Amino acid sequence: MTTTGTDRTGTRHEGAGRDAVALLDRAHAVVTPRLRADLATLPAPLRRVAMYHFGWEHADGRPAAGRAGKAVRPALVLASARALGGDPGAAVRAAAAVELVHNFTLLHDDIVDEDRTRRGRPTAWTVFGVPDALVTGDALQALALTVLAAERHPASAPAAARLGACVVELCAGQQADCAFEERHPRDVTLGECLAMAESKTGALLGCACALGALYAGAGEAEVAAMDAFGRQAGLAFQLVDDLIGIWGDPRRTGKPAGADLAAHKKSLPVVAALTSGTAEAAELAELYGRPDLDEKDVARAAGAVERAGGRDWAQAEAADRMARAVHGLSCAVPDLDAAGELLALAEFVTRRNH
Amino acid sequence: MTTTGTDRTGTRHEGAGRDAVALLDRAHAVVTPRLRADLATLPAPLRRVAMYHFGWEHADGRPAAGRAGKAVRPALVLASARALGGDPGAAVRAAAAVELVHNFTLLHDDIVDEDRTRRGRPTAWTVFGVPDALVTGDALQALALTVLAAERHPASAPAAARLGACVVELCAGQQADCAFEERHPRDVTLGECLAMAESKTGALLGCACALGALYAGAGEAEVAAMDAFGRQAGLAFQLVDDLIGIWGDPRRTGKPAGADLAAHKKSLPVVAALTSGTAEAAELAELYGRPDLDEKDVARAAGAVERAGGRDWAQAEAADRMARAVHGLSCAVPDLDAAGELLALAEFVTRRNH
Repeated sequence: MTTTGTDRTGTRHEGAGRDAVALLDRAHAVVTPRLRADLATLPAPLRRVAMYHFGWEHADGRPAAGRAGKAVRPALVLASARALGGDPGAAVRAAAAVELVHNFTLLHDDIVDEDRTRRGRPTAWTVFGVPDALVTGDALQALALTVLAAERHPASAPAAARLGACVVELCAGQQADCAFEERHPRDVTLGECLAMAESKTGALLGCACALGALYAGAGEAEVAAMDAFGRQAGLAFQLVDDLIGIWGDPRRTGKPAGADLAAHKKSLPVVAALTSGTAEAAELAELYGRPDLDEKDVARAAGAVERAGGRDWAQAEAADRMARAVHGLSCAVPDLDAAGELLALAEFVTRRNH
Repeated sequence: MTTTGTDRTGTRHEGAGRDAVALLDRAHAVVTPRLRADLATLPAPLRRVAMYHFGWEHADGRPAAGRAGKAVRPALVLASARALGGDPGAAVRAAAAVELVHNFTLLHDDIVDEDRTRRGRPTAWTVFGVPDALVTGDALQALALTVLAAERHPASAPAAARLGACVVELCAGQQADCAFEERHPRDVTLGECLAMAESKTGALLGCACALGALYAGAGEAEVAAMDAFGRQAGLAFQLVDDLIGIWGDPRRTGKPAGADLAAHKKSLPVVAALTSGTAEAAELAELYGRPDLDEKDVARAAGAVERAGGRDWAQAEAADRMARAVHGLSCAVPDLDAAGELLALAEFVTRRNH
């Protein structure tokens, strides 16, 4: 078992990291054949886009050796089922359904955000065009809910209802994200941004944990507590991700320092700074008003976010969210030993210095 | 009861039409409160787009007196349940789910096809922007499948699985439609076009009938026969719609004569003409190669389609599809009296001189 806490040694970190990597690899190995079988049922033109998006085919249809993401969500489904005394094997379809939903939102978000690169490759809409990428996203959502509806397990119907409600929340989160970009930075409150991040990132991690609990036959209170665990861990993950987007080591992130600032991204530390009412807030707003920021401007912006308290706030908020996550987990799984895998996964995704 | 056949009197037509209109009005009255309750569960920014799209609100949120479509699909669900001895009241959620799916595809198709008008109003994406219209479509799909998953009826799970598979087929149909527009007209075969129309239009009408049958507790063979009925009637409807798009009376259609030809639409009669290997096929291809067609060109194009046999083919094909539809129906519902409502609906949607 691995431990978590605010004062951990490097060795312990390594241990938890190794555990988490092993869990992710195992989830990936179990869910990939299921996902491939699901995608194989799609009509050829949609399957082609999906296989490319998952990294399993090149644009011309030749097999590719890529791996789609880290399988964090499937790993959470399976580990949640196990933590609540269920058989993770019975939850593999649910794990695949969650991953299908995740990838449907990525396909659509890339269109809406006009993002041209994902996982180091051109996004699907840039390769196959907007119409094909859009309908393939639609088909992946349908496939996710069909996969659950088609199996005969007592948890299937409540899991499908929960996953459907989660999709609505993900849509609301994406809508809010786009709407905030249109508004003046100082008109968006930190509370609105946190709620948006919870919907856009936390909701699906929470749903993954809740589905695992449902497949273990857990009661309503335990399912809700597992949802809270995943949701709060997801928010902590987003805060850490935002911190890395500004202060991450370029050698580790593969992006230049302050990449999110250069892109004028209104990430959580930035919004915290902009809404701080400090002199640095005005400085930052002025910098964000410029169409282009050079290296010196980016360094100035990072300094402004830090002096306005954005960095400290995000770090404290991430710690607070992790504490809430662990509280949710302890409600659902009082036995720390049984909760070990989930703690290792939560620690892994929120540490991110890998 | 109303009768159907190839040699009907005007009076009988009127009778069937009146019956069908009454059925559609009744379905509309029953399903609308359910749909409004479903939309009310959406987060406000998505609900706003959905309420506008359904014609129930103006863009600024004021209530509108509009009516979203003719409720053909909900009427088919309810009439199918009744024809197979079921309680249509138990199938109201399924009828709403089918209508939600229909409207999700309209929202996305309008984006992909860049259509600026629907039901005489600006399309949602032109009013609220592509991101909001796209995520609202996503949310309506999720809502449709959640509505089925959340109810406790033995038909819910098979209905959700069937509706999910239908969405995948609708996506494939839309993808094919877009792909055909990119290809040279003479490279698209009539068989491909018919398959596309079956996926894009027939599949959801078939699914509506199949869902009604499932909620009546029908067996697999009956459900499949009802799907075939709706699917073939849907294809007949598309063929008639395409004929009206070329030769429809402008006073009845509200569109100028030959509107589909002026828009270079590769509708089924046009593709039949283009692939006929006749001299008129070459004439039509030449006309479709021009960026703009004036009134005289449109009349010439209509003449070419007719002389190339496109009009006769479409009329014969529509009659053949209706015959297949009636055959499917008679397999599932041997009692013609019980099948009367469905025949009236099929006749109504394929006549379309109203």
